[in-house]
Amino acid sequence: MNFDLTGYLEQKRTVINAALLTRISSKGDGSRLCEAMRYCLMGNGKRLRPILCIAAAEAVGGDTKSPILEDISCALEMIHTYSLIHDDLPAMDDDRLRRGRPTCHVRFDEATAILAGDALLTLAFELIPSSSADPAMPSRILSVIKMIARAAGYHGMIEGQMRDIAYEKQNINFAAVKEMHCLKTGLLIEASVVSGAIISGADEVTISCLTGYARKLGLAFQVTDDILNVEGDPAIMGKSAGTDAFRHKSAFPAMIGIDASKKYAQELIDKAIESLSVFGDRAAPLCAIAKYVLLRKR
Amino acid sequence: MNFDLTGYLEQKRTVINAALLTRISSKGDGSRLCEAMRYCLMGNGKRLRPILCIAAAEAVGGDTKSPILEDISCALEMIHTYSLIHDDLPAMDDDRLRRGRPTCHVRFDEATAILAGDALLTLAFELIPSSSADPAMPSRILSVIKMIARAAGYHGMIEGQMRDIAYEKQNINFAAVKEMHCLKTGLLIEASVVSGAIISGADEVTISCLTGYARKLGLAFQVTDDILNVEGDPAIMGKSAGTDAFRHKSAFPAMIGIDASKKYAQELIDKAIESLSVFGDRAAPLCAIAKYVLLRKR
Repeated sequence: MNFDLTGYLEQKRTVINAALLTRISSKGDGSRLCEAMRYCLMGNGKRLRPILCIAAAEAVGGDTKSPILEDISCALEMIHTYSLIHDDLPAMDDDRLRRGRPTCHVRFDEATAILAGDALLTLAFELIPSSSADPAMPSRILSVIKMIARAAGYHGMIEGQMRDIAYEKQNINFAAVKEMHCLKTGLLIEASVVSGAIISGADEVTISCLTGYARKLGLAFQVTDDILNVEGDPAIMGKSAGTDAFRHKSAFPAMIGIDASKKYAQELIDKAIESLSVFGDRAAPLCAIAKYVLLRKR
Repeated sequence: MNFDLTGYLEQKRTVINAALLTRISSKGDGSRLCEAMRYCLMGNGKRLRPILCIAAAEAVGGDTKSPILEDISCALEMIHTYSLIHDDLPAMDDDRLRRGRPTCHVRFDEATAILAGDALLTLAFELIPSSSADPAMPSRILSVIKMIARAAGYHGMIEGQMRDIAYEKQNINFAAVKEMHCLKTGLLIEASVVSGAIISGADEVTISCLTGYARKLGLAFQVTDDILNVEGDPAIMGKSAGTDAFRHKSAFPAMIGIDASKKYAQELIDKAIESLSVFGDRAAPLCAIAKYVLLRKR
């Protein structure tokens, strides 16, 4: 399969960045809060979650130009950005560099960073409830909101972040670390893929195949994140390296070694791609994204 | 009109506390995050926002026993509680007492307090999207989510909190303080009333009467909050008094004097009650709540 992933990612990032900018700049100009939200949101992000959402809609034959899909994909990036802002706070990871620039509390101040995070999270849920002429849409939108909130909430991302902090300087076993990452990163990645399918009206069997793909991909993404934390170039990543070792975080390379981590990531990606076999060529983007997760430098 | 407000509030608080407890304790047991969320949510709150939501549904003849109304009213209390947790943080108001107990970051720690706030906000949006046999319901629920997110977001509550911090130790005029309070407290109170009406299928004229009521009530609530900050008993309020003067906050008593503040609150409540005339006896609870806001000791 010959697929130009670089071109695809670039084109999607352009669309998503334009969509994000419309949704954040139209209101609140002159407000420091809005400036901080825009600063963080419009940083040089990979836009992985919105791209996955759109690529999943493509895989199931959905309308990739639909404004509702655009709202959902923007909302996912906002939730991801809010989580980075809060994770970077002095009371949490105390990071000073993010997406190649000073973190929100460094560039602005701590109160503004907390509130900008809160505001991006809230704006995500303001964006998704759109009106539509399609009578099937309101119920689908409600399912998407519920699923995203669940993935981002105390059954998911936030509980994952709690455990990540709690596990510092502790000896944690492999299964616990895997579960922590599934909560912290995996569920929102899964929700990104599945929301693109739900909004496009995909049936349950289709959704279950995509869930299988997303779970492997989400975990592989975290494994490669941990590998980059050891081997990556901070100038390319736009964030500090070596922080896991410094903070005694239970990262995969520290637990199973760097070679076994790479092998594990490869196996996860192979399985993720297997889950896409039913979709044929329509899943070419999802398939290429999986390969990219393995090879990414940032 | 002879209305037993004390009995009404007590009965509604019992229902709401039971509903909140069900929604927070069924999952996540053993998690420190969940413990912190429950600690804050189940504190001795007035439950004003959920009560207003239910009372508004009553005023428009809605089904006050509907599970969707219960979800929305719980979500409103969760959003209010999250805002208190974050406002109390060291980087913001640095408060140590809330609802008669140590604030979340004092009882737990700062990271847990930030995350418990995030989780309550997110849980609110997980709760509201319920399924219903009524085909009119999905669109109504979507309107409610959009309105609540807008009121709680960077056009509303969060921008209000930003200004509240920015206005400390500054000379701010009356109109700016009024607008700040409208954003910080007023819009969520308005959303509480209006969501009860929307979910019950109220028409636009009805909603506009309730909006008029809620705007006056919300502002009066803030004026009486400022008065209590000067004259109130911390033991009854469950939070510290005198903090506005200490922090040089632009509160109403400092700006226009305590007597003029009381007169202003009275006028606002009179106007709020006037807006309810179209509803007759069905608005007895909303009417009594307005009077209570004026006389409240906490």
